[in-house]
Amino acid sequence: MNNVIELVGFDGDDTLWHSEGYYQSAHGEFERIIGEYVDLADLRLHDRLLATERRNIKLFGYGAKGMTLSMLESAIEITQSRISASDLHRIIELGKQVLAHPVELLPGIREAVEAVAEHHRVVLITKGDLFHQEHKVAHSGLADLFHRIEIVSEKDERAYRNVLEELATTPQRFAMVGNSLRSDIAPVVQLGGWGVYMPYHVTWAHETDTDFIDQGSHVVQVEGPSGIAHALTELQARAAA
Amino acid sequence: MNNVIELVGFDGDDTLWHSEGYYQSAHGEFERIIGEYVDLADLRLHDRLLATERRNIKLFGYGAKGMTLSMLESAIEITQSRISASDLHRIIELGKQVLAHPVELLPGIREAVEAVAEHHRVVLITKGDLFHQEHKVAHSGLADLFHRIEIVSEKDERAYRNVLEELATTPQRFAMVGNSLRSDIAPVVQLGGWGVYMPYHVTWAHETDTDFIDQGSHVVQVEGPSGIAHALTELQARAAA
Repeated sequence: MNNVIELVGFDGDDTLWHSEGYYQSAHGEFERIIGEYVDLADLRLHDRLLATERRNIKLFGYGAKGMTLSMLESAIEITQSRISASDLHRIIELGKQVLAHPVELLPGIREAVEAVAEHHRVVLITKGDLFHQEHKVAHSGLADLFHRIEIVSEKDERAYRNVLEELATTPQRFAMVGNSLRSDIAPVVQLGGWGVYMPYHVTWAHETDTDFIDQGSHVVQVEGPSGIAHALTELQARAAA
Repeated sequence: MNNVIELVGFDGDDTLWHSEGYYQSAHGEFERIIGEYVDLADLRLHDRLLATERRNIKLFGYGAKGMTLSMLESAIEITQSRISASDLHRIIELGKQVLAHPVELLPGIREAVEAVAEHHRVVLITKGDLFHQEHKVAHSGLADLFHRIEIVSEKDERAYRNVLEELATTPQRFAMVGNSLRSDIAPVVQLGGWGVYMPYHVTWAHETDTDFIDQGSHVVQVEGPSGIAHALTELQARAAA
């Protein structure tokens, strides 16, 4: 029974619960604040913002706290220190709002996870800030459905290999469900595993940064949670073939 | 062999490597910056700073990023928004320096962990920011000595219970080595486990916030890494008695 998918991983942000929308609206508000100081129609400024953000990810990692520090630094740099302390305080508040946003599940996701759990071990594999992710898991009401919850700092091949080793299985017996080709699908398929790709209506620019192409038909794309169980059946058939 | 200590956990910050000194020097520099705006001889201000920090821990969790956001917010509040953007930028830089500080091991700690590993499974159990802790583990050169590395958001009884369950052992068979009575010793002993308390020369105010008293002689205090192996032998004798 080596060609059976026995373990299924679910991503958290924008797979189980809404997330990116909160970041994007914080970012929009951030741009309105600094737009009072500089002309954001200037595309070079936009590029500089994104460049600062990417540079800071290496130091801060993912998540709302890193984003907030990065926004503060960008705001100071881009306004050449003209921004007021009270506007910087507004930016801190934006970060706090992202950290405290309510955890809202995608419609139908609970039923989808339950359906998958009838035939597979299910685990939650999410990346980002440990403290914030734990808060979201706790408030999602889904924690009990998962055999294990793994919070990692980066979703790359090494991270998946470690998780699979701890769970005593192989990539060939593992499928990952998520909204990011870069973080949820590509590294798993590279290792020889399977992917259920469920795009979310907005994607962080950083997560679209992949040239992944599914050459071996290891991925099925679904429109929403109700398609997940069927996609796994399809992948299972391919695995057994 | 139920009365054998078979698993030994090591704390990271200020047990394996120096940490608190970097935070304290950042904090000292932070006070010099805001001391240009307000009179810090006023003890009420000091109390307000600590109060803001503790309030923010609930939202930000532990670690350098949370501390930096908290310092920024405190600086803005305490100066009533009079602080300049460039001074706030200096505070961001303080946080970055803490995140990027070199990982310097306590003298003799490698040998101490190796000695313990001859007779026990050893694991690293550290709390704080996932990204920063992983960076420190990777740069410590000690990762290979540990059977498992667990980074948790809070070191309380629940966290230790989870870790021990995953490692398939009981508190009675577990000893924790660390510099914080509150985080490393008290919760483990509460569960019925054992503690090797190795005080560090500076302790974060938050970590001294405990009324723990070792009523059952489950703790041995040591002066430094060279005392750890002997302390475990002593605890083992007590466990077997």
